[in-house]
Amino acid sequence: MLVVKVGGSKGINYDMLCRDLAMLAQGGKRIVLVHGGSDETNQLSEALGHPPRFVTSVSGHTSRYTDRRTLELFMMATGKINAVLVEQLQRQGANALGLRGLDGRLLSGKRKAMIRIIEDGKQKIVRDDWTGTVEQVNTGLLSLLLKEGYLPVIAPIAGSFDGEAINVDGDRAAAAIAAALGAETLLLLTNVPGLLRHFPDESSLISHIPRAEIDDYLPLAEGRMKKKVLGASEALMGGVGRVILGDARRPTPVSDALAGAGTVIG
Amino acid sequence: MLVVKVGGSKGINYDMLCRDLAMLAQGGKRIVLVHGGSDETNQLSEALGHPPRFVTSVSGHTSRYTDRRTLELFMMATGKINAVLVEQLQRQGANALGLRGLDGRLLSGKRKAMIRIIEDGKQKIVRDDWTGTVEQVNTGLLSLLLKEGYLPVIAPIAGSFDGEAINVDGDRAAAAIAAALGAETLLLLTNVPGLLRHFPDESSLISHIPRAEIDDYLPLAEGRMKKKVLGASEALMGGVGRVILGDARRPTPVSDALAGAGTVIG
Repeated sequence: MLVVKVGGSKGINYDMLCRDLAMLAQGGKRIVLVHGGSDETNQLSEALGHPPRFVTSVSGHTSRYTDRRTLELFMMATGKINAVLVEQLQRQGANALGLRGLDGRLLSGKRKAMIRIIEDGKQKIVRDDWTGTVEQVNTGLLSLLLKEGYLPVIAPIAGSFDGEAINVDGDRAAAAIAAALGAETLLLLTNVPGLLRHFPDESSLISHIPRAEIDDYLPLAEGRMKKKVLGASEALMGGVGRVILGDARRPTPVSDALAGAGTVIG
Repeated sequence: MLVVKVGGSKGINYDMLCRDLAMLAQGGKRIVLVHGGSDETNQLSEALGHPPRFVTSVSGHTSRYTDRRTLELFMMATGKINAVLVEQLQRQGANALGLRGLDGRLLSGKRKAMIRIIEDGKQKIVRDDWTGTVEQVNTGLLSLLLKEGYLPVIAPIAGSFDGEAINVDGDRAAAAIAAALGAETLLLLTNVPGLLRHFPDESSLISHIPRAEIDDYLPLAEGRMKKKVLGASEALMGGVGRVILGDARRPTPVSDALAGAGTVIG
């Protein structure tokens, strides 16, 4: 069982990714694909006059402030990304099936409607937030679909325990899915070769991290890589065999990562 | 088995519709919900500077010209509508699960990449069109989900036989699903009480049409109602027990229609 997460950053070629995934799926590999939607949501938000707003929590994490309008823009943007990924996989012969975490209670968690942030050096409270963290995975639904030969493609919109749609982090959602399914490998694809000792020098790639030392490497992670290292740590604690931080820009990004390219943790 | 199609016209209250559907689902009724996306796509297209274009085919049918950009806007708009419907059903306790026809090859058909249209009295050919008509339904997938207690919510984006995403008519897609599942009832909800003898006079509701006479009533159908009467005819020919043209604006639109409100055909 392989769980792959792909973001939406520049330089990522969905066409090549889907060709590679379809080839592996046709070879009998059971695969779940999780995607993001940040960049597309930013573009759509700007174009529709509701520019994105990022906030820093008191614990130092930066995240998107997701008011109801932003949640709906996120539904639109991820709706398109999900459809295009499913389409490309279908064109390559894999029977892809798109779902959000909200669908069939696939991914559930608590909604964080109120967040404490730091702005201009002061603590503030922000309300009407539609975000949360995945706490439960409906493995029955995923197993059912995988058994029937479908390739689930999952958008990072979970459901709260009250049934509300919530924006969740895609990397950590992929980690939760991989742990729940007892996946052998979680592959987190990005637009760099893996974790770099001296960011952004790509020649400083760290090719292996022993699983016990993962948290020591957190300080090296820049920007979005932080969430990936956090997700990797959560997946390993949840029993996933290994986590690979791989390069989505390669012509065969998944096969290459499975063959050892990128940062292998485990 | 009940298949319900709801459009996105003004005056339709999704909240009340979902409450009614969830109540019926909790009472043990097996339900499939199909939705549209026209109005939301029009709004998004206008806002993003790619205004909708409607064309009239040589056979006299009016339809949306769906170039690739419009298809992607349709993916966004239906992505949001689908998510909001799933969310509202989940909040009411029904385990809804959203899919496009493209997902898992649920709905397949031929893509009509080229259409012959009439414009300014002249015949023209329009290319790069991403539309089609549903010819096959993956009943295995729907049955599997229904058996496990999920309530499928389906967006009218099918897959071509080559795996391309295609825009299909929601009413006719619902008819194809109802026929394939051998549904007892197909309910097509709209923002009028049913088929009217003298449109738009709502007091001229036709409350019953014998199944053999459905095609005689086609000339009475105005605008979008034409596709509904066509869908009704296709569903009845496909073996559906009865088709109801119902009023989505009522507080309990589905229960009312099942109790005989609207135009009952069969």
